[in-house]
Amino acid sequence: MKEYIKHDEWSIIEEGFIPEYNKISESIFSIGNGRMGQRANFEENYSGEMLQGSYVAGVYYPDKTRVGWWKNGYPEYFAKVLNAPSWIGIDLKVAGNTLDFAKWKVLDFRRELNMREGYLHREATVEDDKGRQLKIDSKRVCSLTDPEIGVIRYTFTPINFSEKVDITLSVDADVMNEDSNYDEKFWDEVTRKSEKSTAYIVAKTKKTDFHVATGMKFQVTEGSKVMDLEPETHSQEKLVSNSVKVFAREGVEYSVYKYAAVVSSEYHGKKGLGEKCTEVLERALRTGFDILVENHKNAWANKWEESDIVIEGDVAAQQGIRFNIFQLNQTYTGQDERLNIGPKGFTGEKYGGSTYWDTEAYCIPFYLSTAEEKVSRNLLKYRYKHLERAIENAGKLGFTDGAALYPMVTMNGEECHNEWEITFEEIHRNGAIAFAIYDYTNYTGDEEYLKEYGLEVLIGISRFWSQRVNWSNSKNLYVMLGVTGPNEYENNVNNNWYTNTIAVWTLKYTLENIAKISKDDPTVWNELSSKLSYNKQEGEKWSDITEKMYFPEDSERGIFLQQDGFLDKEIIKVQDLEPSNLPLNQNWSWDRILRSCFIKQADVLQGIYFLDDHFDIDTIKRNYDFYEPLTVHESSLSPCVHVILASKLGYREQAYQFYLRTARLDLDDYNNDTEDGCHTTSMAGTWMSFTKGFGGMRVKEGKLHLNPYIPEQWSRYDFSIRFRGSILHVAVDKNEVVIRNTSDKDVEVTIYNNVVMIESEKSNSVSTQ
Amino acid sequence: MKEYIKHDEWSIIEEGFIPEYNKISESIFSIGNGRMGQRANFEENYSGEMLQGSYVAGVYYPDKTRVGWWKNGYPEYFAKVLNAPSWIGIDLKVAGNTLDFAKWKVLDFRRELNMREGYLHREATVEDDKGRQLKIDSKRVCSLTDPEIGVIRYTFTPINFSEKVDITLSVDADVMNEDSNYDEKFWDEVTRKSEKSTAYIVAKTKKTDFHVATGMKFQVTEGSKVMDLEPETHSQEKLVSNSVKVFAREGVEYSVYKYAAVVSSEYHGKKGLGEKCTEVLERALRTGFDILVENHKNAWANKWEESDIVIEGDVAAQQGIRFNIFQLNQTYTGQDERLNIGPKGFTGEKYGGSTYWDTEAYCIPFYLSTAEEKVSRNLLKYRYKHLERAIENAGKLGFTDGAALYPMVTMNGEECHNEWEITFEEIHRNGAIAFAIYDYTNYTGDEEYLKEYGLEVLIGISRFWSQRVNWSNSKNLYVMLGVTGPNEYENNVNNNWYTNTIAVWTLKYTLENIAKISKDDPTVWNELSSKLSYNKQEGEKWSDITEKMYFPEDSERGIFLQQDGFLDKEIIKVQDLEPSNLPLNQNWSWDRILRSCFIKQADVLQGIYFLDDHFDIDTIKRNYDFYEPLTVHESSLSPCVHVILASKLGYREQAYQFYLRTARLDLDDYNNDTEDGCHTTSMAGTWMSFTKGFGGMRVKEGKLHLNPYIPEQWSRYDFSIRFRGSILHVAVDKNEVVIRNTSDKDVEVTIYNNVVMIESEKSNSVSTQ
Repeated sequence: MKEYIKHDEWSIIEEGFIPEYNKISESIFSIGNGRMGQRANFEENYSGEMLQGSYVAGVYYPDKTRVGWWKNGYPEYFAKVLNAPSWIGIDLKVAGNTLDFAKWKVLDFRRELNMREGYLHREATVEDDKGRQLKIDSKRVCSLTDPEIGVIRYTFTPINFSEKVDITLSVDADVMNEDSNYDEKFWDEVTRKSEKSTAYIVAKTKKTDFHVATGMKFQVTEGSKVMDLEPETHSQEKLVSNSVKVFAREGVEYSVYKYAAVVSSEYHGKKGLGEKCTEVLERALRTGFDILVENHKNAWANKWEESDIVIEGDVAAQQGIRFNIFQLNQTYTGQDERLNIGPKGFTGEKYGGSTYWDTEAYCIPFYLSTAEEKVSRNLLKYRYKHLERAIENAGKLGFTDGAALYPMVTMNGEECHNEWEITFEEIHRNGAIAFAIYDYTNYTGDEEYLKEYGLEVLIGISRFWSQRVNWSNSKNLYVMLGVTGPNEYENNVNNNWYTNTIAVWTLKYTLENIAKISKDDPTVWNELSSKLSYNKQEGEKWSDITEKMYFPEDSERGIFLQQDGFLDKEIIKVQDLEPSNLPLNQNWSWDRILRSCFIKQADVLQGIYFLDDHFDIDTIKRNYDFYEPLTVHESSLSPCVHVILASKLGYREQAYQFYLRTARLDLDDYNNDTEDGCHTTSMAGTWMSFTKGFGGMRVKEGKLHLNPYIPEQWSRYDFSIRFRGSILHVAVDKNEVVIRNTSDKDVEVTIYNNVVMIESEKSNSVSTQ
Repeated sequence: MKEYIKHDEWSIIEEGFIPEYNKISESIFSIGNGRMGQRANFEENYSGEMLQGSYVAGVYYPDKTRVGWWKNGYPEYFAKVLNAPSWIGIDLKVAGNTLDFAKWKVLDFRRELNMREGYLHREATVEDDKGRQLKIDSKRVCSLTDPEIGVIRYTFTPINFSEKVDITLSVDADVMNEDSNYDEKFWDEVTRKSEKSTAYIVAKTKKTDFHVATGMKFQVTEGSKVMDLEPETHSQEKLVSNSVKVFAREGVEYSVYKYAAVVSSEYHGKKGLGEKCTEVLERALRTGFDILVENHKNAWANKWEESDIVIEGDVAAQQGIRFNIFQLNQTYTGQDERLNIGPKGFTGEKYGGSTYWDTEAYCIPFYLSTAEEKVSRNLLKYRYKHLERAIENAGKLGFTDGAALYPMVTMNGEECHNEWEITFEEIHRNGAIAFAIYDYTNYTGDEEYLKEYGLEVLIGISRFWSQRVNWSNSKNLYVMLGVTGPNEYENNVNNNWYTNTIAVWTLKYTLENIAKISKDDPTVWNELSSKLSYNKQEGEKWSDITEKMYFPEDSERGIFLQQDGFLDKEIIKVQDLEPSNLPLNQNWSWDRILRSCFIKQADVLQGIYFLDDHFDIDTIKRNYDFYEPLTVHESSLSPCVHVILASKLGYREQAYQFYLRTARLDLDDYNNDTEDGCHTTSMAGTWMSFTKGFGGMRVKEGKLHLNPYIPEQWSRYDFSIRFRGSILHVAVDKNEVVIRNTSDKDVEVTIYNNVVMIESEKSNSVSTQ
């Protein structure tokens, strides 16, 4: 845990340069716009510890699988998020002496991520070995409004000297992934061009053949005057640059405006990609830095209007929640249904892949409430478009007749991961994908989605479940053997309650929807059922499973059992463990973790969270009281679910403590791994724990329900949500809950079980409970 | 399955050169002498498919672990059997044209492994592109009597030409392992010397710093006359050679006698290793080819006298069993307690490591019966000497107070393997190591071993078991969670019956021996118990576990359950599977295998085999009848256990079928993997299935029992065993069993439950049943 980030409501601020924390800061101060993003690397060459990272959404490389012992069914490759060509390079040579923050003396330093306006800003004063002091001010943006454009204004001011300064601006495609399995480079050059004040490289990825053109244009001003300079061009394989020389006079500000364009074959033809890049560069230059930055700021203002959460009385908490929201919004904008949300967003390359069940279980609720319907719909369609691949994937594991198993980790629909206990057995992910369809439909009321796409996915998944269970003669019930639940501290168990529950839930939900659609819209259903060769016997089998599924329970304690045999374990509470054992994943061998009772993240409780309406409060309490004390929360996805359930059970102090653990996870580098990148998907869990936990937000039968309370430590909070065309702002203080509707649509809200109408452009309030 | 090996009682013969089978033949025709060994690579450079392999017993390299996803507790390296410098190289250049069996026409070809005399012989006629025909005859031996010496007589005869022939003899240390994790070479040169007709290289292994000097001397004869030649010497890093030119005349035989020495720092000081090598070379040359080969042949005659099995009426079976015995005898001679038996012996590099539980479960019975007591005693002492490491290994997994967990795979006592479900969970290996102490003591009557070494190992293992179980409040019994049994087609199961059984057996056996030794020899016990800080409470805990251990059973079927929940599986017999599913390990994904009922190798039946006296015949039958039909025998170690149990149950035809499957496994390349090397340890299983299966051999309370029968397909067989100082030859035909005692010690044998005295140098017979 580190606490070097200054607390501030709207900005992330680092004051004073701490080289050992540089990689952490590079992660935290990352910027992006949904189409591209980058770690907060310096513009100047930096010889200290750093992790170079520029990413273009959807551009990946299938890195050959590395494994110790091969198991049948493993995928051939792991799709890696690619470190892409870098456009940020601006190097200064002062009287022949190259500026390097690792070698020059850094007299003062301030890095700021301004979340309100979405820019990265760095100010520093540096001194070379001759005592020459230079002031640096750099401001950088990946434009939200024109997402193929990035801009930098890089200003330097000689403080105590006048000297010749060489400025070199580059585009560098000679980059590699730190996380490459076989130390290969993944980019080949296609073409490059280096002309005076315009340069680009078109590079393509090996194997996947994505083409990306990365280019730059620039201007230099002295004071407010554009300088007329004669750039020298350089060009070598995978590197193009321009150099200019200025005689920099003491006290005068020199600004380099670097305009960058990143255009890829995902949106343009491969032919003429260089020309396309030039076109975008020209547009950027024409628009100019100030207007680009202004537009970008306005776009952020809109995002904040929809998704901001205000906390009063706790700056650290305020900064934390905004940081989570900021990262989510700059990672995924929902414009492109081919994209998804990687576990590290644009902040690092670790874990590769782009899509885990995190998207459905944690991210969709965030986008459902904070963005237009299309955004979460696109996330669902992403899976719909991968259905064919999910069927192939299930086929590799021996399933037939259209059974679909979605991959644990994927970029293009194919499985990437290669641990048998996860890849082949952590199949509950299929349930989360089905549940997200319910979640979306329930929240938005968009029944059309089911007809067009959703039911097809549900049928594929139901087919999988019905083949994955088997009849146990010994129990006279259906069982599901050999699975790994959400609690990955158990592997290859039988009858994981959560998985059995979500499987049966899927089958029921699929059957309900078949019944409904076949009645309401027989044409649609007939077409679909014939396309899928669905037959009634299938449905009967599913129905049989829903009636005769085995669920492990302990009747004495009145709890669901995480899996068969759970109570054969020695049951010890985490609080009774010597603290030196924690975190278990760093201190215990894997077998010891597996046979212990300790739980990595919500498992039975994940099921209770998803389906909390299906259980009475006493059942929820008994299970929570049994499982939470056994849970070590060593997944970043764990605390949020517990905030929500603890809130429901009135365990307010515990909810608050869990909330703190999730909200500043990266800002305080809680797990000592932020240097690899931020925990982007878990940020959605933070948001969820706020709104569903403190806010008590639920949607039941098309109606919004709220049960807000305020943690003792705060004086006031408010959050904003979209709901079926209305935009609501829920403000809570110790006395009252005020709901303001800033949309043109009236909406009925159930607050503390009382139905209240919130009219358009009006607000309503009730006393806080 | 291939059937290109000619059937012969005493030799393995390949006629006609089949390049696609060359790697298989290289494995099958391997030779060794317990200290070194090699694949049957050609002396000449061969540009076709081949796997170079020379091995020096005990010389290994710790290759950095390669793994996809790291788990706490994984070892840092995997100890690899090292491909060592090669001394066999003899290259011919005929009129400037290099002989290469891949490029010249092979007119005739015969490769023979003469098992009676222990040599490799190759005859061929080859023709170059000018029509020059050359006869080749090469005979090679790794001397059993002087195990640092290898010799080759390589004879060539021009058939239809007279030409200048360049002969180059080399020692090549520039070798690598095909199975290297990171494509590194593992040898560095220390020194080299290349003088006229003597050359050597001293090379050392990276990291482990084993030094090995590999050298050669040679003579060339024309007809029977030694030629006086002036060799040209060559020397470059890791390669030394001598070349001589002869003018070879049509019809005349030219023989190259190449004497090699391999001396290592395991037996000699590192300093002066080159001189030591020269000394051995001089001795070899002095002794001469003929006498070396004669001595070697006599040593083999002695080995056969002790361990041969004769089968009449079935040449294929005869060849098969001799091949197994031959390989075992040339892999391990029991002279050095630091050595053990690798899964591939000296026939390949795959699987690395040297020691698996195969040694205790399969190999020890072979050496107990066919070699002097010291040999199996040394195999036990190998583990005794690793006890400290086994305690460290257990410590890494969180066990304390002297608990010992022997590694799954090891070279030096440290764990090498890195699959969590095996490395951490396949802990039954500890039981096999304890059981081997019983097996040895029971067979030999050597009670001293227990006092000196055995009990200390038993206490370490018992401590492990007592910490590895836990009390289940739900069952009110002890349980053992999270294990993998011998059937590796189940991972991370609870209460594997075999593991629970062998654990409880160990605890009982340890307690018995503590009781016995503390009574018979209190001084020894007091010393040991104080050295080990053993206290009575430990023993009481062990005793409690033996009384209150849980064993999964199905009372309805009257069988032991392989593990908790086994009967929740869909129970299908292998014979009811579509044959296209088999072998499962090539056709099914891992999860499908895991949740199926199919069994890789004896598991419950392994326990019943070990402890068959503990169960009545009906219990054995019920378990066999239930489990065997579910078993796919996809481990080479499976059929042998089934031969023994089937024999006991009177399932003679089934026993015979299983026997065939194990006896010619490599000769017929049954599993399509002999090219990687032979299944050396499973060969001991073959031997065991013969003597304990067909022979019905057991030792009970110090007495030898036999219950022989003869498979219908054979007319007669006999096998030889040592037993407590006597040497017995058991001949069985359809009518009678004749037991001949060729030792000077009388021995009492129980045949078909009748006690018979077999006096020294006499024989006795009974009717066959």
